[in-house]
Amino acid sequence: METDLPEAELWAHRSSQTEPDGLDAFWAGTLARSRAAGGEVRLEPVGTVLRTVEVDDVTFPGYDGEPVRAWLRRPVTALRGDGPLPVVVEYVGYGGGRGRPEESLLWASAGYAHLHVDTRGQGAVWSRGDTPDSGPAGPQVPGVMTRGVTAPETYYYRRLFADAARAVDAARSLDGLDPARVAVVGRSQGGAAAIAAAALVPDVSAVVAMVPFLCDVPRALRITDADPFAEVVRYLATHRDEVDAVLATLAHVDGVNLARRGRAPALFSAALMDAVVPPSTVFGAYHAYGGPKRMSVWPYNGHEGGGVDDDRAAVDFVREHLGG
Amino acid sequence: METDLPEAELWAHRSSQTEPDGLDAFWAGTLARSRAAGGEVRLEPVGTVLRTVEVDDVTFPGYDGEPVRAWLRRPVTALRGDGPLPVVVEYVGYGGGRGRPEESLLWASAGYAHLHVDTRGQGAVWSRGDTPDSGPAGPQVPGVMTRGVTAPETYYYRRLFADAARAVDAARSLDGLDPARVAVVGRSQGGAAAIAAAALVPDVSAVVAMVPFLCDVPRALRITDADPFAEVVRYLATHRDEVDAVLATLAHVDGVNLARRGRAPALFSAALMDAVVPPSTVFGAYHAYGGPKRMSVWPYNGHEGGGVDDDRAAVDFVREHLGG
Amino acid sequence: METDLPEAELWAHRSSQTEPDGLDAFWAGTLARSRAAGGEVRLEPVGTVLRTVEVDDVTFPGYDGEPVRAWLRRPVTALRGDGPLPVVVEYVGYGGGRGRPEESLLWASAGYAHLHVDTRGQGAVWSRGDTPDSGPAGPQVPGVMTRGVTAPETYYYRRLFADAARAVDAARSLDGLDPARVAVVGRSQGGAAAIAAAALVPDVSAVVAMVPFLCDVPRALRITDADPFAEVVRYLATHRDEVDAVLATLAHVDGVNLARRGRAPALFSAALMDAVVPPSTVFGAYHAYGGPKRMSVWPYNGHEGGGVDDDRAAVDFVREHLGG
Amino acid sequence: METDLPEAELWAHRSSQTEPDGLDAFWAGTLARSRAAGGEVRLEPVGTVLRTVEVDDVTFPGYDGEPVRAWLRRPVTALRGDGPLPVVVEYVGYGGGRGRPEESLLWASAGYAHLHVDTRGQGAVWSRGDTPDSGPAGPQVPGVMTRGVTAPETYYYRRLFADAARAVDAARSLDGLDPARVAVVGRSQGGAAAIAAAALVPDVSAVVAMVPFLCDVPRALRITDADPFAEVVRYLATHRDEVDAVLATLAHVDGVNLARRGRAPALFSAALMDAVVPPSTVFGAYHAYGGPKRMSVWPYNGHEGGGVDDDRAAVDFVREHLGG
Amino acid sequence: METDLPEAELWAHRSSQTEPDGLDAFWAGTLARSRAAGGEVRLEPVGTVLRTVEVDDVTFPGYDGEPVRAWLRRPVTALRGDGPLPVVVEYVGYGGGRGRPEESLLWASAGYAHLHVDTRGQGAVWSRGDTPDSGPAGPQVPGVMTRGVTAPETYYYRRLFADAARAVDAARSLDGLDPARVAVVGRSQGGAAAIAAAALVPDVSAVVAMVPFLCDVPRALRITDADPFAEVVRYLATHRDEVDAVLATLAHVDGVNLARRGRAPALFSAALMDAVVPPSTVFGAYHAYGGPKRMSVWPYNGHEGGGVDDDRAAVDFVREHLGG
Amino acid sequence: METDLPEAELWAHRSSQTEPDGLDAFWAGTLARSRAAGGEVRLEPVGTVLRTVEVDDVTFPGYDGEPVRAWLRRPVTALRGDGPLPVVVEYVGYGGGRGRPEESLLWASAGYAHLHVDTRGQGAVWSRGDTPDSGPAGPQVPGVMTRGVTAPETYYYRRLFADAARAVDAARSLDGLDPARVAVVGRSQGGAAAIAAAALVPDVSAVVAMVPFLCDVPRALRITDADPFAEVVRYLATHRDEVDAVLATLAHVDGVNLARRGRAPALFSAALMDAVVPPSTVFGAYHAYGGPKRMSVWPYNGHEGGGVDDDRAAVDFVREHLGG
Repeated sequence: METDLPEAELWAHRSSQTEPDGLDAFWAGTLARSRAAGGEVRLEPVGTVLRTVEVDDVTFPGYDGEPVRAWLRRPVTALRGDGPLPVVVEYVGYGGGRGRPEESLLWASAGYAHLHVDTRGQGAVWSRGDTPDSGPAGPQVPGVMTRGVTAPETYYYRRLFADAARAVDAARSLDGLDPARVAVVGRSQGGAAAIAAAALVPDVSAVVAMVPFLCDVPRALRITDADPFAEVVRYLATHRDEVDAVLATLAHVDGVNLARRGRAPALFSAALMDAVVPPSTVFGAYHAYGGPKRMSVWPYNGHEGGGVDDDRAAVDFVREHLGG
Repeated sequence: METDLPEAELWAHRSSQTEPDGLDAFWAGTLARSRAAGGEVRLEPVGTVLRTVEVDDVTFPGYDGEPVRAWLRRPVTALRGDGPLPVVVEYVGYGGGRGRPEESLLWASAGYAHLHVDTRGQGAVWSRGDTPDSGPAGPQVPGVMTRGVTAPETYYYRRLFADAARAVDAARSLDGLDPARVAVVGRSQGGAAAIAAAALVPDVSAVVAMVPFLCDVPRALRITDADPFAEVVRYLATHRDEVDAVLATLAHVDGVNLARRGRAPALFSAALMDAVVPPSTVFGAYHAYGGPKRMSVWPYNGHEGGGVDDDRAAVDFVREHLGG
Repeated sequence: METDLPEAELWAHRSSQTEPDGLDAFWAGTLARSRAAGGEVRLEPVGTVLRTVEVDDVTFPGYDGEPVRAWLRRPVTALRGDGPLPVVVEYVGYGGGRGRPEESLLWASAGYAHLHVDTRGQGAVWSRGDTPDSGPAGPQVPGVMTRGVTAPETYYYRRLFADAARAVDAARSLDGLDPARVAVVGRSQGGAAAIAAAALVPDVSAVVAMVPFLCDVPRALRITDADPFAEVVRYLATHRDEVDAVLATLAHVDGVNLARRGRAPALFSAALMDAVVPPSTVFGAYHAYGGPKRMSVWPYNGHEGGGVDDDRAAVDFVREHLGG
Repeated sequence: METDLPEAELWAHRSSQTEPDGLDAFWAGTLARSRAAGGEVRLEPVGTVLRTVEVDDVTFPGYDGEPVRAWLRRPVTALRGDGPLPVVVEYVGYGGGRGRPEESLLWASAGYAHLHVDTRGQGAVWSRGDTPDSGPAGPQVPGVMTRGVTAPETYYYRRLFADAARAVDAARSLDGLDPARVAVVGRSQGGAAAIAAAALVPDVSAVVAMVPFLCDVPRALRITDADPFAEVVRYLATHRDEVDAVLATLAHVDGVNLARRGRAPALFSAALMDAVVPPSTVFGAYHAYGGPKRMSVWPYNGHEGGGVDDDRAAVDFVREHLGG
Repeated sequence: METDLPEAELWAHRSSQTEPDGLDAFWAGTLARSRAAGGEVRLEPVGTVLRTVEVDDVTFPGYDGEPVRAWLRRPVTALRGDGPLPVVVEYVGYGGGRGRPEESLLWASAGYAHLHVDTRGQGAVWSRGDTPDSGPAGPQVPGVMTRGVTAPETYYYRRLFADAARAVDAARSLDGLDPARVAVVGRSQGGAAAIAAAALVPDVSAVVAMVPFLCDVPRALRITDADPFAEVVRYLATHRDEVDAVLATLAHVDGVNLARRGRAPALFSAALMDAVVPPSTVFGAYHAYGGPKRMSVWPYNGHEGGGVDDDRAAVDFVREHLGG
Repeated sequence: METDLPEAELWAHRSSQTEPDGLDAFWAGTLARSRAAGGEVRLEPVGTVLRTVEVDDVTFPGYDGEPVRAWLRRPVTALRGDGPLPVVVEYVGYGGGRGRPEESLLWASAGYAHLHVDTRGQGAVWSRGDTPDSGPAGPQVPGVMTRGVTAPETYYYRRLFADAARAVDAARSLDGLDPARVAVVGRSQGGAAAIAAAALVPDVSAVVAMVPFLCDVPRALRITDADPFAEVVRYLATHRDEVDAVLATLAHVDGVNLARRGRAPALFSAALMDAVVPPSTVFGAYHAYGGPKRMSVWPYNGHEGGGVDDDRAAVDFVREHLGG
């Protein structure tokens, strides 16, 4: 059944999330500091069972220069043209990591260089990962939603979103990849990271945020009892005196606030029966988004959203804006 | 937690399933009749977003010549060598269908012709399908496990397994595919179909049955309460006087009985925490299997089994026996 | 808790379901074709443990003349008066069949001829059935809600509702039963069939639709996540491009549209805590109903509705309109 | 799935429940005291919608003479022969009461006088009742399993089983009913009451105990976590120092101990997938039973046991021993 | 997620519960009769493992003089000043009893005499009790919510709330306790009892009702499906003709009606994610409360409400009004 | 129901867990390094609502000298004798922290100095905490069970158990506390920490491990599907190639291996219906324990074990060995 407002009301709905003071400075500082930390992008070819796609194991400097892993999948040389390849940087959903090299073959099979970015400190629930999170794990609810949540400076998603932005930097630095044609894409938490990357690196060429998580968090806490949002609720249920601090931290990473800073053409999707990411939170970010935008609404889907149909639309959308 | 016997006992366990009289005649007749029904294999190229893989929409004559759909995915011409391609015929798990052309890119990306066979009358729960089932739907529990289950002649899996065998025939008839190098593979219900295909077409080159379903059914009914096995239990709970007839029907499609007829090299997998397909039922089929065989045991997995690690092993195993 | 609008709003609520073009022609054609198919009504006495009620095993021609089973229960001869008996034709809820002859003794014990109609292709979940469904089972979700749902012509409920109308024809043809005094009754799916029968055979003498299913389907899909409505949702979740076709099919069998065509006195019931059949969907059909009508509202019941109290009211209502 | 020992082991299994000292004296005293309390059996005709069965509202003196309600259903006069009717006294399952007069028409329709005994203090969960329980409600878990459980004298089931025995006395006292032909029957808790009645009034003519509850309680507490047995577990989880007293009380009402005292021909049933009443507890009582006996085993059923098939077998069994 | 109205609407919401005729007379009569029944308050010192707190086992005359148990915990003599101690009378939540003497040390450790009152007929689910309920247990749903619910005179909560008021009388009668400084406190059902005690003994010095149960029952039945409110729903689902009588009974114990009669300073709390006691029902009682009042709102808590933070606020609030 | 072996078999059962090479060196090194890191124990008095107990906020150097928080609760001065107080160091269960100062008053009320140690990086699920965990959070399942689990050196429980041992050091260093009389106690994870502390600081005076977690981990993974053990299963389900490394790490913290090193008198408890910590795992540690020992078995409890009855026994046991 529908989990949120009727579709007509979603189109009219605007989020009441507000911007914290110093939001731009916070992110500018985070990114500057991470870039200043230096570090190099390393590629190591990986042996796989594949014959149409080749894969490199990538290590790039993320938040504060900390090493983050990724796969770079590309069509084999015989299938590449002369010029550099357009690039799709993809971020992963909650609990997952970059997986195995043989997974997620769509983007490379569609002709793109595909930088599939690992998720720090996750990567053990539905797909494996290889990147640790460096941050201190204060008193928290299991999961990452409340790791360091009492201040923006220590919050987990500061580090994850800095990784996301630095992944674009990494992609642009690689031989054979076209720095002028980079798209950022993701589903759920990966969609949140895509919105964040588009806010922090506004000159990317396209954004695809499918059923993006972490938008309009105050509203989400009130209207869903599903994880990961509910991790925050459980935290506040015992740390009753930290409500203001926690909501202030979350405002720094909220997709509504970050979407305002995006400029690239964007494709969103939302599902009317999504109990994990209520569609009104996605619409909140969508309406706030600062660039040209389009929305796919899936009336009978849950958090899987459009699934492969979202994926096919994503390739078409990326092709429209990056060519390839 | 473990759902069945400890691993050491699984290696010693033998199924007590018995063969019904006339089993060979039943299947020989089914296959003969289906082949006699004729019908042609039709290919229609499909436009996709892909650049490394090309896809055809296949319709082939299945049980009694009824049209069954499949996708044929192949590396694009530039990546094929001179000779015909080795072929992997894949069957799908319970509730799913062949999906969209852009899904399941592993086998084609690994260099094989990949005939991804649709599942008659399923294909709406976790992936879409396009093939109807022709059979009469007698009084039954929702699902296909009890469709026509009162006699082997009317049972759903007679039709599905005939489709599976005829898919091998179809693959062998196509230009550019090597009829001497065909593997049959699948997971769960798809694994059951692979075992059945290997029994009905024993000269295939390799079989991969990952956490295969529908083996040692009498035992499965007693030790698991998960669907789809539990559909049969619910049926027998109201049709209390049909127990003998139903068990007799099921013996005709039981993986233990069919595995005895397989001759090609086979790779099985079983998971010790699998509540859907208890591992002892897989071992029952494994120990009965009539050809050279190997077993992967996943001690901490449920019905996902080895997941992508099973897939990678499957490609290696197929490469070992088909080349390519 | 209440699952839908407060009672006061239910009385004011009107469904927004609309009629598809050609609805009358569709059903007229269906019924004409079924009647034209001929077939005879056969009765075979059944031995039971009963002494006050005698039972016949009935086979009558349903949709397209296909044989449908039923029980005919009647008071033993000593208790019948001189004239023909008034008749109650009862339809069964989702998943059930006509059961055993010794079940459902109320109507015969109340003095009526009771034609208890089997449900094609169901009859294995909570009571047994004996009638197969002939239709092709296209890609579908387990259950019958999406069987053939892509077109009205192939949809399961076309066949079931034709059976329902033809059961009235059958009852009217039998010796000792009064063709001028026939009521159609049912609960849940059986209530939907009763509404359908009253639309297709408008000269029946009374209709009882207790917590009737399959009314205002578009609304139901949005507001309940319980099966069987949710079967349609799951189908549309993978077949995203078939929404329009599926909703058009469903409009042909929607109780709101069929209720408009009913003329006989009708008794409905609805339960405010019904999570399976939300009461607003029942009120949608009730308000649309074309004949004299009455509604029982059960404020603290779920889908069991008024249970035995509904049944007692049903007998009183039937007695009021059929005598006996 | 099976919830207990395999069937072969059930046939060999014997309960280790032991008899408390003074068990016969306890029940003899209880029954003597209840009979001494006097009280009369009152019948009041009830208006119903029925034409083949007539119903009286019965009040009879139960435990300590306290008034207990029942329905007496009989075929209408025209269907009765000359002599007195054989009688079936039926007891009800946990949470239910005698319901409405129009329910449970099987026994009267089969030609028997049917005394359908209400359940003191229950009758509100799945069917309604009209009889209060007089006993003090000490600290207890919701439900009746631990009401007064610290001593046999105050335990709920002492009162309920005295009611059960006194219901036989009541039936024997009524005009038109044959005191020499009385059967006691029931399902689940009703089966426990039937065993108890057969122990306390050993000259009844037949006993039917379908999936009877409350047998081999110590074993049941260890092997099932379903209510009502689990009510006792929850009680002992907080009243840890009362284990011995509680188990001693329960031994006074345990079906294994009471079954030893039965002498009439008995029909039991057990279901191998019953999670509420594990079949080994039924077999414990069955093997202990002191009269001629027969057992129906339902391999694929849960606590519904044989359902209507059990009912039909019950009528046949009663007919075999009571005629009628 | 939030289970009820948004906080802003809660502040504006007023309950539509109405007062039954004769409410004051009903309670005055109940209390008069209970006081007239006499009985003495008995204390017996209890040996415990404690060194800072001493405990007496109290028996006091409750409803109709029936003996009710309690613990009296006090700081050891060395820590008491010269004058009599202020007293906190605490009532317990649903299913629990007074527990063990070593539990619930907060109030005595905070310097108060703590009379921890047992709950008649409960005390077996999450903490143990020692007091039986005397009332007849008519047909009812497991639990106490429907025990005797067909009339105010026989209803369980009449007895429990009379116990609550008589506990204040008992506390006031004890040497060393200050009868002029008594607070009544409780959580959930204990909060309902505190409201009731404050209505029946309006000169208590303070009231603390944390997430109080049993307020605005008609609304609660409509908006929550959690026990214990849902016990009433299940009762009405089978006793459909008793709705008016049951609601009339419940109005006699409804916290909204009783709160109107309170005069002492009161501290309430409510939790916006409470699915057991919806916050609007608490606000209904709060807005109706007849004395000075304060409300703590916990936005991210369920039925645990403010937990230890509620407790700390309760001590502060009691200190403010009782000193000590 | 019972979740594991029958009690008689538990007494005979011995764990097959084995010791990793270098276990003593691993822990000796860990402790030496932590002690060498220095750091001071700081106390800050806390204002509370209490009058019989005073509380200090403690910060002590834990693993590698990292600051760990605790509460020190003591009877107020007036209640202390002349000599130093015996000390109870308590560790907390999974997900919880030290909570609020006003919670957990038993030990101080019983006359002991009570050092209630916080849990690094937890303290947000059922009680709050204030201590962060420093360790890197590699790819992991939500929770701490797999944090750093690929090597003993980086594993979370290395740090937690070092904190536990260092808490004893801290207690011994404080004025007014008797370094010769220190007991370590805990429930579940807290019981695991108590066993660990007793292994690392074998001259403590007593150990109480109630339903201790983390014993015989390999067996636990096989026989329970409850968290937190199941976190490891989920990790291994995606990181299939790390089974050996993970099990080797877990052997370093397994309660069976650590219990062998304990020498102080120990009280264990186990519950036969415990689904979270199967009793055979507790018995495994119990039988391995190297000092005098006693076991409480709770036959009808789940993971709450003996609850307050365990607590009372714990105080008695501690009194027996520490006096006070």
